Amino acid sequence: MDYGSLSLKLHRKFRGKLETTSKIPLKDKKDLSTVYTPGVGTVSSFIGKNTQSAFDLTLKGRTVAVVSDGSAILGLGNLGPEAALPVMEGKCLLFKTFAGLDAFPLVLATQDADEIVSIVRGIAPTFAAINLEDISAPRCFEIEERLQDLGIPTMHDDQHATAIVVLAGLKNAVALSGRSWFKTKVIINGAGAAGSAVAKILSCRGFDSKFCSAVADVIVLDSKGIIYRGRPDLDPYKKELAKFTNRNNLRGDLETALTGADVFIGLSKGGILKAYHIKKMSRDPVIFALANPIPEIMPDEAKKLGVRLIATGRSDFPNQINNALVFPGLFKGAITARAKRITPEMKLKAAEALSKLVKKPSQENFIPSIFDQRIVKSVSLAVSSAAGDK
Amino acid sequence: MDYGSLSLKLHRKFRGKLETTSKIPLKDKKDLSTVYTPGVGTVSSFIGKNTQSAFDLTLKGRTVAVVSDGSAILGLGNLGPEAALPVMEGKCLLFKTFAGLDAFPLVLATQDADEIVSIVRGIAPTFAAINLEDISAPRCFEIEERLQDLGIPTMHDDQHATAIVVLAGLKNAVALSGRSWFKTKVIINGAGAAGSAVAKILSCRGFDSKFCSAVADVIVLDSKGIIYRGRPDLDPYKKELAKFTNRNNLRGDLETALTGADVFIGLSKGGILKAYHIKKMSRDPVIFALANPIPEIMPDEAKKLGVRLIATGRSDFPNQINNALVFPGLFKGAITARAKRITPEMKLKAAEALSKLVKKPSQENFIPSIFDQRIVKSVSLAVSSAAGDK
Repeated sequence: MDYGSLSLKLHRKFRGKLETTSKIPLKDKKDLSTVYTPGVGTVSSFIGKNTQSAFDLTLKGRTVAVVSDGSAILGLGNLGPEAALPVMEGKCLLFKTFAGLDAFPLVLATQDADEIVSIVRGIAPTFAAINLEDISAPRCFEIEERLQDLGIPTMHDDQHATAIVVLAGLKNAVALSGRSWFKTKVIINGAGAAGSAVAKILSCRGFDSKFCSAVADVIVLDSKGIIYRGRPDLDPYKKELAKFTNRNNLRGDLETALTGADVFIGLSKGGILKAYHIKKMSRDPVIFALANPIPEIMPDEAKKLGVRLIATGRSDFPNQINNALVFPGLFKGAITARAKRITPEMKLKAAEALSKLVKKPSQENFIPSIFDQRIVKSVSLAVSSAAGDK
Repeated sequence: MDYGSLSLKLHRKFRGKLETTSKIPLKDKKDLSTVYTPGVGTVSSFIGKNTQSAFDLTLKGRTVAVVSDGSAILGLGNLGPEAALPVMEGKCLLFKTFAGLDAFPLVLATQDADEIVSIVRGIAPTFAAINLEDISAPRCFEIEERLQDLGIPTMHDDQHATAIVVLAGLKNAVALSGRSWFKTKVIINGAGAAGSAVAKILSCRGFDSKFCSAVADVIVLDSKGIIYRGRPDLDPYKKELAKFTNRNNLRGDLETALTGADVFIGLSKGGILKAYHIKKMSRDPVIFALANPIPEIMPDEAKKLGVRLIATGRSDFPNQINNALVFPGLFKGAITARAKRITPEMKLKAAEALSKLVKKPSQENFIPSIFDQRIVKSVSLAVSSAAGDK
């Protein structure tokens, strides 16, 4: 199936995918006087006296902004705001379809972190939550951090939803391999938004040790090789990564990193994982080849090399690691609880809920399918109860 | 009918009025692969190479931002952004219902002109046009002016849609009174966003004299009385008004202004027009009492004083001057023509089209009714042809 041509055709036919519609019919002067002036004045006055009531009386309480600057669109790179719109519209449809949340895309004319922060602050009164999307590293880290005081859940999905799904899938996969989680050594190829967030959640960096259990070691590689303490030219975010990863401060390339490692997580480029890499890994390794659309290694090829436990980002192979397994339920849970932010505990609870939905994990099925109807309910309940505990 | 209670009840039941929905069904993995990854990547790449194609391939080409800072909500004043949401959602429904345009409300956390300009510039790539709404004078003038280079139609509706509907109605009403337009003397009570814009369009200030015909004189009053050249404490925008209005530089109060005047246009406060005022006006005066929800004088009362020609802002009296007669068709016409801005000529053409829809004007009917289905088509055609002439 050539999804690209089909998608282009559908986009042209419908002029995009998302529309705004009325929940209330508007047929005559009476309707008009109710939804608009003079009737609506009473609603405005009511909210003017109690700002919080906007959550119940307007779309604010049920609508997510999906914000992008178009700097890191899918695996395509920096194509600018207009090119990000089809992805953001798609994301909005997923919010509606899976979580029943309304959502609206906002693509921005700037890639300056200060300006993005101001714009998001500026439009925040309209929304229940802010989903930052496809913003390149390292700006995505700073932007997200600076917006945590907004008073509504604000999260960069590429980091955290990915980290949560990886954690959920990896827990099951590592168990299937017969390993102990605490003794597992993980190699992450890719130090962008997703790679950093996966490194943090697997190392419990920024997570309460009461709720989080870390693997034995994580080593992260960027395009220049292993990230280690003292490597020249690390930006502040990679310096931070070096602090809590790479226990033995190993230097070198992917082959060096993978020697004796148990898990490979690719958030990098298609086809870079070769047979000679896999042969260096420990027996029965776990491979998460998440580059899209071409994984770091194709599942068929990995299987030929004896790999049993493999996940990709694709829907046409088993074990799809897809953000959409997490973000609808995560935002729904946080919004339902009227949480002021997405906390580390919520993320762990979301991963746990997702992991546990697979009753009997197998090599063909260690993460739920995206159309499993239990997912959003399960994740959102886990998240909102974590909010309630605070 | 207590529209306020009914409105509050409906808003609570539906949690606002506007929702975001999908134009394309999303039932299985194939749908997901088409509207989202991997298929959507092809659409993003396409737009990345040709930014303008976003108008055809995304919601951008058919979606209006309805932006407010909540500083001048209806007649209620400065109640803040959340309180503006019900009005902006309502406006979005009108865009959809009357013009088939999608629209989304954005209420802002700031009332600073510089910040509002930056935010609107920031979010502009998402939209086909920007409708500024319920922003108080004089900031509304500056904000609108500074955004005219955005490349998409950007208009403060409270100014221009009001001015256009007033012009359309007044042409017919003045003709019905047997007066010559060129000899008509108009008093405008209220120098806010709407009052200023009405003064400009009736005086052809900023309009090409080839297309625009001015009345004999316009006098504008604010809360301190007549605006005249040399009055102390005029802000720059009122100073500008003084330049082209009040031919004889009259000073004084409303009674002074109305002496011998032909037309009263109230954009001020309920109940301020009294019998003794009307008695000072010329015979068979025209009264546009547009304050909402209580007009400057109630139509029944005016009729008792012998006034034949009266318009209000209300739907329960004849001759309703309602912005919704203009903005759906005006934006539709400008968007259809892919105009870069709303020009003065478009405004005049819109007024003319609206005026001419009343085939035989009478004192009960000199402006079309909002549910007249010809309006949007007629106004949008007039506007898009004016764009084409450029």
